[in-house]
Amino acid sequence: MALNAGPAREAGRLFEDCQYAVVAARGTSDNAGRYAQYVWGARNGYPVSLTTPSVFSIYERPPRLDGAVVVGISQSGESPDIIAVLEEAKSQGRPTIAITNSPGSPLAGTADVVLDLGAGVEGSVAATKTFTAQLACIALVSEALVGSIGGLKDLAHHVETSLETEAEAEVLAARFSGMEHCAVLGRGYNHATAFELALKIQELTQVVAQPYSTADFLHGPIAVLEGGYPVLGVVARGDAVDEVEEVLDRVLALNASLVTISNLQYETTDDTIGFAPEVEEWLSPVPAVVCGQLFAYHLALAKGLDPESPRGLHKVTRTI
Amino acid sequence: MALNAGPAREAGRLFEDCQYAVVAARGTSDNAGRYAQYVWGARNGYPVSLTTPSVFSIYERPPRLDGAVVVGISQSGESPDIIAVLEEAKSQGRPTIAITNSPGSPLAGTADVVLDLGAGVEGSVAATKTFTAQLACIALVSEALVGSIGGLKDLAHHVETSLETEAEAEVLAARFSGMEHCAVLGRGYNHATAFELALKIQELTQVVAQPYSTADFLHGPIAVLEGGYPVLGVVARGDAVDEVEEVLDRVLALNASLVTISNLQYETTDDTIGFAPEVEEWLSPVPAVVCGQLFAYHLALAKGLDPESPRGLHKVTRTI
Repeated sequence: MALNAGPAREAGRLFEDCQYAVVAARGTSDNAGRYAQYVWGARNGYPVSLTTPSVFSIYERPPRLDGAVVVGISQSGESPDIIAVLEEAKSQGRPTIAITNSPGSPLAGTADVVLDLGAGVEGSVAATKTFTAQLACIALVSEALVGSIGGLKDLAHHVETSLETEAEAEVLAARFSGMEHCAVLGRGYNHATAFELALKIQELTQVVAQPYSTADFLHGPIAVLEGGYPVLGVVARGDAVDEVEEVLDRVLALNASLVTISNLQYETTDDTIGFAPEVEEWLSPVPAVVCGQLFAYHLALAKGLDPESPRGLHKVTRTI
Repeated sequence: MALNAGPAREAGRLFEDCQYAVVAARGTSDNAGRYAQYVWGARNGYPVSLTTPSVFSIYERPPRLDGAVVVGISQSGESPDIIAVLEEAKSQGRPTIAITNSPGSPLAGTADVVLDLGAGVEGSVAATKTFTAQLACIALVSEALVGSIGGLKDLAHHVETSLETEAEAEVLAARFSGMEHCAVLGRGYNHATAFELALKIQELTQVVAQPYSTADFLHGPIAVLEGGYPVLGVVARGDAVDEVEEVLDRVLALNASLVTISNLQYETTDDTIGFAPEVEEWLSPVPAVVCGQLFAYHLALAKGLDPESPRGLHKVTRTI
């Protein structure tokens, strides 16, 4: 992260002249954008709009971006719709930030400040290390805005703790190897974790995995639950925990099969993959998603699939 | 809509002093918010942020709303998290708008301008007429912003045309009665339609239905497709049609079972529920979603389920 301390401070200065942020991203990067909504919102007071790229690209009717700092997130930095949003922002004179693993990419070329993921070439089609690096960059900008860049120093250690859960993930994945669909639930900062885990499961295992905030889940989708329905819940110590546990209690009352990724003792199930108890809630998506990535990886193996060659996907997806 | 011509003009005046809009909503109302993102974005130039209510409620760290007009959408007007967003906006001196079926509700009480859905009591648990009324209110505000409130006059007629497709919906639903999961695809204005249809199918039939923008679908989820996988595509005449058809061609090449809700001749499948060919793209979600609601309704009946009593749901969901 030393790589980005300077750019994060520059990014923070761009925020300070703005009233809100617009984030343009797709797929895994869009899930990093969801994390930014909570972090830059709750910690730094900036409303974040996850934009709809087609308004810029297909309809060619870009909105007026007065007051906005515009952030593009893309591993490859090559998706034309994301580049179009930053180019439009630039032409409107708005400040732009790119979070990318490719500092030489067209996306980086359109940005005033580039946060380089520095994750090295990501060989796997389903993004993993670039996702956690994106979260770390977003967290770093948040820290720059509160005037402290020391808070992330334990994050690498927390990730190592998560990597030690691989055996648990493997055992649970074997138990759930017959799974064909599941719901993935989280709230607040871990809303993003739920979305990214559902995407990872879907990409690697072809299981139909649906992510929800626990609140949205009650507004309709809970209707799909029946006995044995697999539910993956992300539960982190912090402000959202009571509400999340209340919903998971309802899930258990409907006899769903619950697995939790959690850093506290959620007493009503034994099927937990645990991550670092001492991590602050706002940073918990980083170690939590690593546990989930391991689960998705072993679920693919348990199903006899090759996690390096997910069906129908390529590393770089160019959409307009 | 005569009911709301005055309030829509007042709402438009509130927009004119703002740089962007923040929308707070859950479930079906959140899908109306997705429509607002495109309509107020592409037609009126306002970036729209679908907010994360937990930042206001659970974390009690509301962002600074300078420059924002804040819109709450809720059928009942009673969900505490949505009310909390409007109350915070009011305390920050920001203009507020409620779109609700309950003009006497707490949500309406916190708003400077109330757009009354006027849909009458909605007896069904799964919202249908209140959703189309929400879309119409959002469209009316857009029209007020461009200085014309005449453009919606044919909308009721287009809905009637959709209601005439009930026999086709019933036949297709019978054919797909064994369906256990499906993907629902749309882009641009009909991104919202795809999300709402997936929710309706899920609520009424317990089929695991996943909505995607056609662009996001290529960034990962397309991996779940295999021979016979059911896909519902919303295809409306207009600017997004080429991109949507290109993705649906890929879906067909993977031997998925494709049903389209469309107002043009999409030549590669016969399984189409058709809506009014002459409707403008930006208004097409209204007649399109009605066709899809009929499909969901008949799918429930074909599965021997009671669409009036979806499992696990209540009419008013209060979340924090």
